[in-house]
Amino acid sequence: MENYAKIADTGKRRIVIVGGGFGGLELAGSLQDADVQVVLIDKNNYHTFQPLLYQVATAGIDADSIVHPFRKIFEGQDNFYFRLATVEHVDTERQVVETSIGLIKYDFLVIATGATSNFFGNAQMEQNAISMKSVEDAMELRNTILYNFEKALQLDDCEQQNSLMDYVIVGGGPTGVELAGALSELRRHVFPKDYRELNFKEMDIYLIQSGPQLLKGMSEEASQKSLEYLQKFGVNVWLNRRVLSYDGYTVSLDTGEKLITRTLIWAAGVTGAPLQGLSKDSLLRGNRLQTDRYNRVAGYENIFAIGDVAAMVTEENPQGYPMLAQPAIQQGHLLGKNLQNLLAGKPLEAFTYNDQGSMATVGRNHAVADLKVFKKDLRTQGFMAWLIWVFIHLTSLVGFRNRMAILLDWIWSYFTYDTGNRLILGGKHVNIPVKETITHKAVE
Amino acid sequence: MENYAKIADTGKRRIVIVGGGFGGLELAGSLQDADVQVVLIDKNNYHTFQPLLYQVATAGIDADSIVHPFRKIFEGQDNFYFRLATVEHVDTERQVVETSIGLIKYDFLVIATGATSNFFGNAQMEQNAISMKSVEDAMELRNTILYNFEKALQLDDCEQQNSLMDYVIVGGGPTGVELAGALSELRRHVFPKDYRELNFKEMDIYLIQSGPQLLKGMSEEASQKSLEYLQKFGVNVWLNRRVLSYDGYTVSLDTGEKLITRTLIWAAGVTGAPLQGLSKDSLLRGNRLQTDRYNRVAGYENIFAIGDVAAMVTEENPQGYPMLAQPAIQQGHLLGKNLQNLLAGKPLEAFTYNDQGSMATVGRNHAVADLKVFKKDLRTQGFMAWLIWVFIHLTSLVGFRNRMAILLDWIWSYFTYDTGNRLILGGKHVNIPVKETITHKAVE
Repeated sequence: MENYAKIADTGKRRIVIVGGGFGGLELAGSLQDADVQVVLIDKNNYHTFQPLLYQVATAGIDADSIVHPFRKIFEGQDNFYFRLATVEHVDTERQVVETSIGLIKYDFLVIATGATSNFFGNAQMEQNAISMKSVEDAMELRNTILYNFEKALQLDDCEQQNSLMDYVIVGGGPTGVELAGALSELRRHVFPKDYRELNFKEMDIYLIQSGPQLLKGMSEEASQKSLEYLQKFGVNVWLNRRVLSYDGYTVSLDTGEKLITRTLIWAAGVTGAPLQGLSKDSLLRGNRLQTDRYNRVAGYENIFAIGDVAAMVTEENPQGYPMLAQPAIQQGHLLGKNLQNLLAGKPLEAFTYNDQGSMATVGRNHAVADLKVFKKDLRTQGFMAWLIWVFIHLTSLVGFRNRMAILLDWIWSYFTYDTGNRLILGGKHVNIPVKETITHKAVE
Repeated sequence: MENYAKIADTGKRRIVIVGGGFGGLELAGSLQDADVQVVLIDKNNYHTFQPLLYQVATAGIDADSIVHPFRKIFEGQDNFYFRLATVEHVDTERQVVETSIGLIKYDFLVIATGATSNFFGNAQMEQNAISMKSVEDAMELRNTILYNFEKALQLDDCEQQNSLMDYVIVGGGPTGVELAGALSELRRHVFPKDYRELNFKEMDIYLIQSGPQLLKGMSEEASQKSLEYLQKFGVNVWLNRRVLSYDGYTVSLDTGEKLITRTLIWAAGVTGAPLQGLSKDSLLRGNRLQTDRYNRVAGYENIFAIGDVAAMVTEENPQGYPMLAQPAIQQGHLLGKNLQNLLAGKPLEAFTYNDQGSMATVGRNHAVADLKVFKKDLRTQGFMAWLIWVFIHLTSLVGFRNRMAILLDWIWSYFTYDTGNRLILGGKHVNIPVKETITHKAVE
């Protein structure tokens, strides 16, 4: 007898969704009135609003406010079943996913597992860098930043002290730009008051981008303005450089330049995180699953993929859609409809992407936005873009309570130039006393 | 050469405070204008508002809102220095404390290290029970509760399932009463919606108290009413019983009764947590340091103790003051004055305790309060006591942002009968998939 996870057999067809990010969440909700059983599997019991992770990391908001428990979100949806588990493998012959709580049978499987940091095979980098994909990552970065200063207070050696005060961010996409901006604001308004004994003129923030511009994929104006803003805020933006290695102390660039830091944040790219057990033929470059316009994975009848892990390859779109929240939400929504069409024997509706644009914030009153309004481009930078950014992020958050809590934090920090959450809380640093454990020295 | 921690020598006399609880915080603040150097050492970088830990544990509020970073609190106080460290030992001859970041010299030492859970030497209990002394404890309990239900969903065996759904709280003081009440509210309003597949008639909450009444130290009315309220909420209050052992599954009582639970919360008593290196003669029963009316530790000229760790033994008060926030705050405040008197060669002021009463909340609209208003007893129970409890706790919190955040959470949950923070976040459960790892079976 095999080990099956315990989930009631409701006699309905079972749609198993792996992953409760933007796509999985939207899909489960759009199946609300469907005559099916919806099983959502996630390794956390909450949905994470990833666009604000960087604010958790920089002590602007608390972690609780950007996550929302799945069970709460789907409280009123009778066909919804949640299971806290990791999924290891899919057996497409027998139509089961193999999870940490046992086998789960599916009639339809939707892979919404998103993306993971891409270290391009650099194991040393993976070990030493901090990435920014989860709430735990963000809390870890927050703890590290605050802990670094506590340690720096105990050092006399300038190089050692600087290694704890300097930050290197790799990757000039939205995460990198937003983190660099937020760190520069902390350096200006908050840290000097908290750590009067340290000289924050010595705190350097580097943003390293492999290409010639920031925010690739956005407009020329957005790239240019975000660079201007960051430079105005004193961030060292280094373009056209690649990071070759990082041993936890010395960062080596392809130009031969070296930087010293104990904290390197890796925001240089993501790769799809599909399940094991699918045919290799379905996998495209970047580890994404090739799907048709109905999000059906190539080679399968009843397996679908949405969001970051899906590459819907079309003539006009040979790389698949960008790995952003909007395509994931829209695909999740349409797939909900299409699964019901499928069950009703109705024709499916092909996906078309309604690009609403994208935006990034660099700091208070400073953002860049490339919007599409009635299919027209609306590009704006500065205060107006920042207001739009604030509005869109507040309204996109899941849960009224979260919206209010974050609004409160933002109003508070806007007027006081202060952030309330400078806590070393949870994670591996807790209760580990500050000890000088420095063994590295800069190599030449 | 010895390893001294790096703290600027300001040329002033140095007052070292170990511990930033209610007492240490108040003391440091009351030295604001003193011509001294104030060094506060704590193992966390934040102050914890302990009275609301139980609400963090029961998912009512987020952890960030009941803690406040020391550096933020003392931002404007020039003579204040914070050091994140654990203190291991004091060398009273050389006047140094030995900490995890090195030796720290003092002219005056104030021990404000508080109390720790008292397991009365029962190592098995200490290993298997969850206590409620820190934010990490509270988050751990929250994670455990939520994780238990996820696990219970996977079980067929009734006893095993019940072991995950039942809770045993040991200790009928404020923490035990408040936790039991909050759990019963979750059982009534929240869990059945989150876990529709579980039968919450099977969830039992036991509160075990060794003596004949709850809330010992409060009035007869308060004890009686809190018992009534808990019984009305369906909590099994077992008086006059002692827990003998707990192996992580079976709780054995001195009456021969046994209970099965995977979660035992230990709120049955605390013991002082003094520093090593002080004369054994200064230690009283309960591990508290004996002090005079000026909080000076018996046998020392320049070492003081305040709060839970201090036992100010007087004729009218042979046990020392109760281990509560109020005596700690009042002692911290007076000691700040007295240290300045001492330095100015002025006479010291003896401590008198201004007992403002005590209170405990059992659930929404249900609290008990024994207040002293203009030295007159004012005893009230029910809605009015609850309103007073809410008001006093909100105004006692450190930090405007925290007050607003908690007010928001309370208003939210008051009207929706919902709590927003049902997250398995941080701590050892994260990313550990639900696996059936049950090895115990009930003895008998």
